[in-house]
Amino acid sequence: LAANQYAAEQVRTILNRKRIFALNLVSSPGSGKTTLLTSTIQLLKDQVSIGVIEGDQQTDIDAARIRATGVPALQINTGKGCHLDATAIYNAIQQLDLADGSFLFIENVGNLVCPALFDLGEAHKVVILSVPEGEDKPLKYPHMFHASDLMIINKIDLLPYVDFNPETCINYARRINPKIEELQLSARSGEGMSKWIDWLIQHK
Amino acid sequence: LAANQYAAEQVRTILNRKRIFALNLVSSPGSGKTTLLTSTIQLLKDQVSIGVIEGDQQTDIDAARIRATGVPALQINTGKGCHLDATAIYNAIQQLDLADGSFLFIENVGNLVCPALFDLGEAHKVVILSVPEGEDKPLKYPHMFHASDLMIINKIDLLPYVDFNPETCINYARRINPKIEELQLSARSGEGMSKWIDWLIQHK
Repeated sequence: LAANQYAAEQVRTILNRKRIFALNLVSSPGSGKTTLLTSTIQLLKDQVSIGVIEGDQQTDIDAARIRATGVPALQINTGKGCHLDATAIYNAIQQLDLADGSFLFIENVGNLVCPALFDLGEAHKVVILSVPEGEDKPLKYPHMFHASDLMIINKIDLLPYVDFNPETCINYARRINPKIEELQLSARSGEGMSKWIDWLIQHK
Repeated sequence: LAANQYAAEQVRTILNRKRIFALNLVSSPGSGKTTLLTSTIQLLKDQVSIGVIEGDQQTDIDAARIRATGVPALQINTGKGCHLDATAIYNAIQQLDLADGSFLFIENVGNLVCPALFDLGEAHKVVILSVPEGEDKPLKYPHMFHASDLMIINKIDLLPYVDFNPETCINYARRINPKIEELQLSARSGEGMSKWIDWLIQHK
């Protein structure tokens, strides 16, 4: 962890110098991170330069989905590894060579446990929780919700079909992390996406 | 891992001696493992003795849900840990003191990565994948699908509302593990549960 922290500070120095705003997107597998990114890119790409780093155990399915939007994406395969680390991000940003003032989205391996412990040099961790996963996840996986500055409740188009009360979920998250911000949206239907775009532009 | 394997063999010896059939349920957070267990217990508990070991980073929400069915459940909190290990299971089975011929269900921490590497002395790993997570998960998290003998596709009641083709998912899983068996069900609606109960009784 000490070696990771050293690399994370190196990443942060480079990002600050180039005024690159980096977010580390963390969640369970299948919460909709990649769909959130492709929808976000469609709404932002005419205004700002964007780069994406994709973490998965195997495949470059996600990087291919990002590249189809016209934005550069670098896939990191972790093999048996359960999270991205800052050294991998350090190498990736050399390769991506993003323009000054870019947005950098880092999509971590789908894992609500291990990525909580690893600083990647990002400005914020953003935890995505999808409605079918259930409202108790902040209590059961507290380290991730403690480490994150924003919780996005995704797939709200599925609310009519599952037992999920967004207010209960937000209360649980604030019990773990009183300062956590929250947004509710559906990356698939587009509902709530404009508030997320506003958040991105305000926090840059 | 060597220490874990040693403990796993000790667990397996005890379970064999008592003819206890143990399954290690693994999945992403929120795939519906606990609901699957409570539904399974309702259908099985009049025929056989059952015990449950629940793994979570924090809370005993899941053990409380199991105990409400009248079945003994022991909660293990892993803290920052991302998986159960065989030493914890060894201690848990001493405490639970199950009757000979019981079913033992071990609900692992919700994590599609790390629990793949840890033998808990179980007869089979059973991976649960819920429909909203997407059909590409076997390719992106191959170690878990390689380590599992059965894939349960859960939450099929949500198929009309998401993009998920069960056949595609099964093909992906078989690309990773040609011998993996599969069942499709909804633990919430009850659809498909009878095939799962049949599977349990046949494999015991």
